[in-house]
Amino acid sequence: MSKLRRDTDGGDPHVVVVGAGFGGLTAARDLAARGASVTLVDRQNHHLFQPLLYQVATAGLSPADIAAPIRTVLKDYNTLCVLMDEVTDVDHERHSISLASGATLNYDALVLATGARHSYFGNDQWEAHAPGIKTIDDALQVRGRILSALETAETARQENVESRDEYLTFVVIGGGPTGVEMAGAVAELTRHAADMDFRYITRRCIRIVLIEGGPRLLAAFPAELGLSAVAALRSLDVEVMLAARVTGIDGEGVMMGDVRLRAATVIWAAGVQASPAATWLGIAADRSGRVPVGPDLGVPGMAGVFVIGDTAAVIDVRGTTVPGVAPAAKQQGRYVARLIAAQASGLPAPPAFRYRNYGNLATIGRKRAVADFGWARFSGIAAWVLWSTAHIYFLVGFRNRLVVGANWLWHYLTFDRGARLITGAAARIAVRTVRIPSVSDVGAATPPVIALTAA
Amino acid sequence: MSKLRRDTDGGDPHVVVVGAGFGGLTAARDLAARGASVTLVDRQNHHLFQPLLYQVATAGLSPADIAAPIRTVLKDYNTLCVLMDEVTDVDHERHSISLASGATLNYDALVLATGARHSYFGNDQWEAHAPGIKTIDDALQVRGRILSALETAETARQENVESRDEYLTFVVIGGGPTGVEMAGAVAELTRHAADMDFRYITRRCIRIVLIEGGPRLLAAFPAELGLSAVAALRSLDVEVMLAARVTGIDGEGVMMGDVRLRAATVIWAAGVQASPAATWLGIAADRSGRVPVGPDLGVPGMAGVFVIGDTAAVIDVRGTTVPGVAPAAKQQGRYVARLIAAQASGLPAPPAFRYRNYGNLATIGRKRAVADFGWARFSGIAAWVLWSTAHIYFLVGFRNRLVVGANWLWHYLTFDRGARLITGAAARIAVRTVRIPSVSDVGAATPPVIALTAA
Repeated sequence: MSKLRRDTDGGDPHVVVVGAGFGGLTAARDLAARGASVTLVDRQNHHLFQPLLYQVATAGLSPADIAAPIRTVLKDYNTLCVLMDEVTDVDHERHSISLASGATLNYDALVLATGARHSYFGNDQWEAHAPGIKTIDDALQVRGRILSALETAETARQENVESRDEYLTFVVIGGGPTGVEMAGAVAELTRHAADMDFRYITRRCIRIVLIEGGPRLLAAFPAELGLSAVAALRSLDVEVMLAARVTGIDGEGVMMGDVRLRAATVIWAAGVQASPAATWLGIAADRSGRVPVGPDLGVPGMAGVFVIGDTAAVIDVRGTTVPGVAPAAKQQGRYVARLIAAQASGLPAPPAFRYRNYGNLATIGRKRAVADFGWARFSGIAAWVLWSTAHIYFLVGFRNRLVVGANWLWHYLTFDRGARLITGAAARIAVRTVRIPSVSDVGAATPPVIALTAA
Repeated sequence: MSKLRRDTDGGDPHVVVVGAGFGGLTAARDLAARGASVTLVDRQNHHLFQPLLYQVATAGLSPADIAAPIRTVLKDYNTLCVLMDEVTDVDHERHSISLASGATLNYDALVLATGARHSYFGNDQWEAHAPGIKTIDDALQVRGRILSALETAETARQENVESRDEYLTFVVIGGGPTGVEMAGAVAELTRHAADMDFRYITRRCIRIVLIEGGPRLLAAFPAELGLSAVAALRSLDVEVMLAARVTGIDGEGVMMGDVRLRAATVIWAAGVQASPAATWLGIAADRSGRVPVGPDLGVPGMAGVFVIGDTAAVIDVRGTTVPGVAPAAKQQGRYVARLIAAQASGLPAPPAFRYRNYGNLATIGRKRAVADFGWARFSGIAAWVLWSTAHIYFLVGFRNRLVVGANWLWHYLTFDRGARLITGAAARIAVRTVRIPSVSDVGAATPPVIALTAA
């Protein structure tokens, strides 16, 4: 078991937590609540409620609805310091970490909770054509791409049907909860926009395809809920392709062996790779880049170094691998806070980490979801209400809960997705990719004039 | 007076409106409401309520609160088409415009309402150091810079007081309504954040400076209201420098002759330059880049071409120059719609354009504003209530009104600025610009530990 080293100058122990996701934020808060001296480092200034990020990517919510400044979340803890900076290295012998700004931080205990990024399974060239959704910037880019594709399709019109169809095909790769939620939300966003806002594209022209490499959707859920998800997606007119291996992604779409699926918008929800904590520590990672940790979440052989959340490969006391989900990260954060505090006080360490699965939820569109609590499995609108309530409840900060709740109610009643803005780089992409080879007079294609009278 | 040319093929007249700001949106809507065939072109997909953009730059509102997709705003008009594209040229002899996508649009009447950008009075190298606020991306960049400066100052601490002071000095250049509103909002945002969220920086360390080249603030308002604005800003601890000529801006701050004001964050609100409509038309612009138009807002010698809003230099029938404000642009949009519809129907043209000034409002912080209605001038909280009501009322779309109203009430009651996110390029700038030359152990500088007890 890792032991907590006291500072050489005899001062109070200082805990450095890296990463303000669910795991790091929980660890830092619990430690500070016990009076520990904590420095929390994150390269962003905000904590992000990642489970709702797909809603930002599909224009249902604004970034500020699901993110809160870390300093604000933790403002009541006097012994806690927040640094906006990035780890570049860990020196576990000197008990210090190096930061991108050039500063060095000494620690008595170190908690690495730096999360994960997308993984393209060695095909990094796919990223430019199929962005994933892990940060606010990712989500805004995807939002811009989806909306720009509709704009481009609208201008292409009859003269160029093939190119138009390409812009009206939206592919989501990966049939886990993120991919399923994303496909449902894309279907609702694009079809509703086609109905209400566009003249030339209609909901029937739009094609949404969800590609999953395995034999079923939602592999982490019971098989019957995977089937419910397929049924729910089909009722939203999403084509579900199972056991379909993606072999290539480029500017024209997705290749599956010899089959090409032409699509201008491809969204990646298929795999994640842990942040490079193993590299900083100079140890071997597992296949997903995660750091193997002991039963106390400590790194074997490195006193006072803990890794939690998506960055850690955790086998809990029952021998099962702990999944990379928010509740698991929070439980690990709570656990290390307790352990570090116990060690510092010379109290007995808590028993080995044990993951408690309180249930899994995934939503598909406006009023369908699947829920698995072990003792109960269900799908449909009851699961959706539960999903909405749980997500609003767990949102950090009262204001966000209020705003998201109001936005959702509004959106549910009116179908209005208020955040349909193309901003940033996506706005420039939009104009550049318009291809209308032979239209010399778009004006002539405008709808028939009804009447023209002076006031 | 410009005459409306009928399409050569004898079809219904087609009006092209370029720009979906206040002027273009009004013109397009009024024309479509009369049954005209209209194509509205904008390089963005959204209409922006620019008077509240400074609130996005200071984290009070989210972009989606003050912007609405153009298609949604105009979805009820069947004879209207929206194109997301950019004008590159106008051929007024062939009655056509060229677009960045390569398409060409024919028109019978053309309304150019392409607005204005910042002007650095020939010092374009200043832009990198002193961004202005005209688009959502501009505002998000400024928001990121302000918040990043606070983060950087927090890490610099005692060891490096000079650099810290530079990051805690915020300069706004330009004493018009935008500059005054911006300076007040920056003061409130930064001082409140220092109080609540940061450990090492305090409100007393923060310096806000408003620089105006002329002898007074709010030159377009009566002198007494300019004085009220100075008093209101001073009560917010904003230093107001009048008759101060900026001679240089670089990465270290602002030069005024031999005087250097060191500041990491400089915001430009000093001057605007019209969009290049005069270049497209191949005619001479005035000093601000605007197109001189006749009393019917038509371009002399170019049948069917009208220019309105910030792009036009309009002298109204009383011989006064029409100001570049939203109400003037809307009135011009309404006027050209009426004129074009009259010409198309062979009815008499309306009398020359006449600008009606219904009053001017500018706000300074949470509960101060100045109002000028000609017959009445006042300042203080009554003016602020009027300003808030008017701005919420004029926001496009009911949802936005509701959300902005709720956000403001929340923000007013709690001082909470919910949108304090550093995103996009600004997030990367933040980490890069941190300069802590000699801090080898930031951990040692953490606050005293109160108690450390196990649960």
